[in-house]
This record gives sequence, C-alpha cells and structure tokens, in this order.
Amino acid sequence: MRISQPYLLFLGDVTDPLSAKTARGIVQWRPEACLGQLRLTADTVSLGLSEMTLQQAKQQGAKTLVIGTANAGGVIPRNWLDTLISAANMGFDIASGMHQRLSEIPELTELANLGITHLFDVRHYNERLCVGTGKKRQGMRLLTVGTDCSVGKMFSALAIEQSLNSRGINARFKATGQTGILIDGQGISVDAVVADFISGAVEQISPDFDTHQWDIIEGQGSLFNPSFAGVSLGLLHGAQPDALVLCHEVGRQHIRNLPHAQLPTLEQTIQANLLAARVTNANVQFVGICLNTSSLIESEAKQLCVKWGKELGLPVTDPVRFGVETITDKLTV
Amino acid sequence: MRISQPYLLFLGDVTDPLSAKTARGIVQWRPEACLGQLRLTADTVSLGLSEMTLQQAKQQGAKTLVIGTANAGGVIPRNWLDTLISAANMGFDIASGMHQRLSEIPELTELANLGITHLFDVRHYNERLCVGTGKKRQGMRLLTVGTDCSVGKMFSALAIEQSLNSRGINARFKATGQTGILIDGQGISVDAVVADFISGAVEQISPDFDTHQWDIIEGQGSLFNPSFAGVSLGLLHGAQPDALVLCHEVGRQHIRNLPHAQLPTLEQTIQANLLAARVTNANVQFVGICLNTSSLIESEAKQLCVKWGKELGLPVTDPVRFGVETITDKLTV
Repeated sequence: MRISQPYLLFLGDVTDPLSAKTARGIVQWRPEACLGQLRLTADTVSLGLSEMTLQQAKQQGAKTLVIGTANAGGVIPRNWLDTLISAANMGFDIASGMHQRLSEIPELTELANLGITHLFDVRHYNERLCVGTGKKRQGMRLLTVGTDCSVGKMFSALAIEQSLNSRGINARFKATGQTGILIDGQGISVDAVVADFISGAVEQISPDFDTHQWDIIEGQGSLFNPSFAGVSLGLLHGAQPDALVLCHEVGRQHIRNLPHAQLPTLEQTIQANLLAARVTNANVQFVGICLNTSSLIESEAKQLCVKWGKELGLPVTDPVRFGVETITDKLTV
Repeated sequence: MRISQPYLLFLGDVTDPLSAKTARGIVQWRPEACLGQLRLTADTVSLGLSEMTLQQAKQQGAKTLVIGTANAGGVIPRNWLDTLISAANMGFDIASGMHQRLSEIPELTELANLGITHLFDVRHYNERLCVGTGKKRQGMRLLTVGTDCSVGKMFSALAIEQSLNSRGINARFKATGQTGILIDGQGISVDAVVADFISGAVEQISPDFDTHQWDIIEGQGSLFNPSFAGVSLGLLHGAQPDALVLCHEVGRQHIRNLPHAQLPTLEQTIQANLLAARVTNANVQFVGICLNTSSLIESEAKQLCVKWGKELGLPVTDPVRFGVETITDKLTV
C-alpha cells in the first residue's frame, strides 16, 4: 500500500475529539503531508488546518482524501457518501481506516475500476504475500514491543524516528497498523493478513536496505495478550530487530478489555521478547523503555523513570513528557 | 465447517502414492467414514476401498465427494471437472484441500447457490470469527506442539484420541489443519484465518464442554519456525492446554525448507511452550514426547526413547512404532 500525499483530511460531522485521534496523529507526525481539512458542519472537530472545499484542495495539489476518524460500528455514514463520491469523481484517491470497506460502496468501486480513483482500506489486506523466511537482511532495525495493546508502540516508534532524523541519522518509520499506515502513507496492517503470512508481511514492509540507517518498525499487541499474541510473535520474527524498545502504560491493572488476564511484569516481557526474537536475530537487545505515565504527576513520573532505569539497566522515559533522546543516545554511539 | 460423512474418496488420475497422503489418512483414522473410492484411470493410486461410481456411492448413502489428493500447484485439473460437476448435480457435497477453491468453479458455485451441493474448501476460511479472550473454559485439553512443521503433530493427536477412547476415556480429536479437517469432517485451518483471530478460532474449535473428557487438539508449526510461529502461539493460547505433547523428527538438520534456521533443542521447545502456555493456563504441563524415528532402525529408536525419557523425565515414544500408551497412561490416572 502506498497512499499518495499530500492529504485533504476529511472529518465528516464528527464532534467527539477522541474520534479524530487518527487525523490528529497524521497532523502531529506528518504536518507537511496535510494540506487542509474538510468538515461537513460547523460543530465538527477541527484540527486547526486550513478549511478547504474539494475544489480548493484539488487546485492546491491534494492527492488523497483521508477519512481520519473512527466510530463505534466502523460503518461509513450515509451522509458522507456524496462527499466521497464527488472526491473520487474529481480524481482524489480515498483512504480509510474504517471497518467497512470503501470497496463495498458500488459508486466508488466503479470509479476505481475506471482508474479514476484508488481506494485504500488500510484496515484490510488483499494483496498477495510471501511466507516469511527469517533470512538475515541488510540494514538495522528497531521494533517497539509492549506489555499489552495500546501502550504507545506507534507513538514511541514515530518519536524515535523523529529523534534519529533530527540527529542526522537517517531513520524510516515502518507502519504495521492502520493509523501508522495513514500517517506514513504506506505499510501493511499485519493483524489483517492471513495468519500464515504475518512474518512474511513484515519482511515485505522492511526488506533489505542500504539507503538509510534504521528502519523503526511499529509493534502490535503483546506476547502476553491472549487475543493477539500470534500477531506479535510473527511481527517479532519478521522484524528480526537489532534493537527492541519496551512500551508500557503505568497503572494498567490487567490486559486491555480482559479483566481476568494478568499483565506481565517488565522483566517477563523483556525475557519473553528476547527469547523469541533470537530465532531470527541472535544479537537482539533492548535499548530502552517508553512509559505512558499519564496517570502520574510529572515529578512522580520522573522519579519512576529514574528508579526503573536503575533497576533494569536501560534508559526509561515517557516519550510524551521527556522525549526519547536518552534512548536514541544509545543508537548513535 | 462440518462436512457430512460417509465419504466417497475421489483420487482423480493421481499416480504418485505420496500425493494421496490425505486420502490415506482419512482411511487410516476414520475407516467407518469411507464408503468407497472413485478413480478415473486404472493406473490411479488405490486405497484398497470398494470401487464405486457416483451412482453406486449415492445409492449406498455417501454424502460427500472428497478430493483426497495434493499436487504441486494446488490447482484442480480440468479433466476432473466433469466428475465434480456431475457429483454436485447429484446432490453430493464436495470437500477439497487444494489451494484452488471449489468456489472458483462457476458451475459448482451455481449449484451451491441453488442449495443442491455444499462446497468445503478446507484450506480456506471465510466465516466470521470472534477475537480470543483466554477465558478459562470447562473440559480438559491436550495439544500437540513441535520443534518444527511436519513432525507428526496430527498423527500423534489422532493416536492419542484413539488410545484414550480404547481405554474407555471419551476423547475428541479437534482439527486445525486441512488434512485433519477432512479426516474428522470438522475444524478450522487456523493458518488460513485473519491473523487477529488465530486464538479466537481455536476457542471456537474447542469451546466449553462437559459431554466428554478430553479435547485432543492438533498443533501446527512451531514457536521456533520463523515462517509460522505466530500461528503456533495463537493456537497455544487459544487451546489453553492442560497437557502438552512434544513432537519431533529425529535427525532433522534444520527448520523445514530453511537451511539457515536452526532447529531448537527439545528442552528449549519445552521451556518456550510452557512459558507461553501459562498465559492462558497456569497448570499446563508436558505429558510426553512423540518422535518420528523413521531415520533409525527399530532397536536404535527404542534405545533413544529410553535415553531421552530418562533425561527429560517424560514418556518418550514413536507413535507409529511403539504406540502412545505410555503417554495416555499419564492421562488416565
């Protein structure tokens, strides 16, 4: 999947700021890719971008209309269809992270078949893949792994990419989930591929390279999440990481959505990931820990990072509050 | 998937005995489900079953025509189509383990849409699934795991089912791969589901039960196979096994098809599986080891089983040569 940029971000008539998290992520990490925003009502959430009609955005060079919102059912609302179909007719590509596929909308499929638009359903994957091999590939790779889902693996990967690039070290974020794909304009939702091809998909996302220094691969799930651990293990093997960064939310009580499922300790998570990662890279090591400390006040968070850093012998930080420089320090020596 | 039995086994015009391995497995493990065989030529491999025309099989109550052969491309040969379409027209269901889907053959799809036949492409899976939860389920479960692919996990599971049942302990084989599904007439190819649903698929294959004593779940792949380990981990979590049986081929030099990928030791495989399995069942334990010793003469094989049995503190056997009674002894106390 390779989604053309720049984007016009479509916010529909969404009024809940949380529902526009994906769009906000795109603006945060790829501001240069965001030409403007299109809202259907005055009440709609704003990202602070220039308001544009389809016409204006087209004139200024926008390539893709991106649905950067989520809703409970994942269904594309009927009152958005006019805008989407008009955009496709004008030659915009359309990208969506909704469950319902754009390709289920006959008018859009028809325009896509005529070559007038391209549809990107980033939550799904239909292309052919190869089975993974675990063969050693050229280039250095960092993967973010976690104690659970939704603990900051994408954010940490993007922050590390940005930090390395700002130090003059050429690093490229590699997306493995829908939000990451919309942000970067490419990648594969590894949880959406057929199970036999998980590691193969990651080998395709991050192939042999000598054009830059690091691939920073977005992790998914956790080896300890009983719903999704298979995805995490295939991703770990396919990434064959040289460096791992552990992500964790301070104060989480149990595996997300599963009150009966115990959260692993940081030590358990480190050990399990090292053991498994050695299958495809004997030299793998952890280079840091990224915490989501939003449940703590800042001074407590700082203390905790120092304490755990000493106990685990690794740089520990909250990437939102304190950045990731202590981790990228370790990648630049 | 629930495939009606008894079967008429279709061998097409296959002359290589290895290509009829699936059909042979069905005859070996479910002889009562095999009414007869249908061969297109006199040279075709025979399973030693009664030769039947479609007409004869239908009259005797056959429900499903099973394509029990494999070929290199996985494509259904054109000269088989007449037989398949005639069978569907007569009301046979059709089951196939080929890569090419029966549902890609328009004549068959048309008859299926009319309700005249049902098509079972056991290598594929299109039904809706739920995400796994890891919640504790009723009933006892045994899972076969391996150092690699193709080391006897299905055979061992079927042998253990048979041994338990012959001792009056009610056990049910649960299929997770295409051959197992054709043998048992039900199951899900877990490597064919969308990656997010691996453990959920296994939870569906082996739900809560109090109707019998053991579910004997067929394992897939290996935690150490860099192509397929994600499937193996999701399967392990979804199975939440009480008992594990380790399968291994003596003399294998490296991971199948991957000369660069090292085979794990038995001890490594045991440790990695126990660690991972505890995520959904704290009480999991290994109850035995099944070896494929076909590279050794029988006396050497016997010695090796005794030696490794002492070293690992578990019953070690070759299920083909020595049966699995030493293992099922441990399940009946």
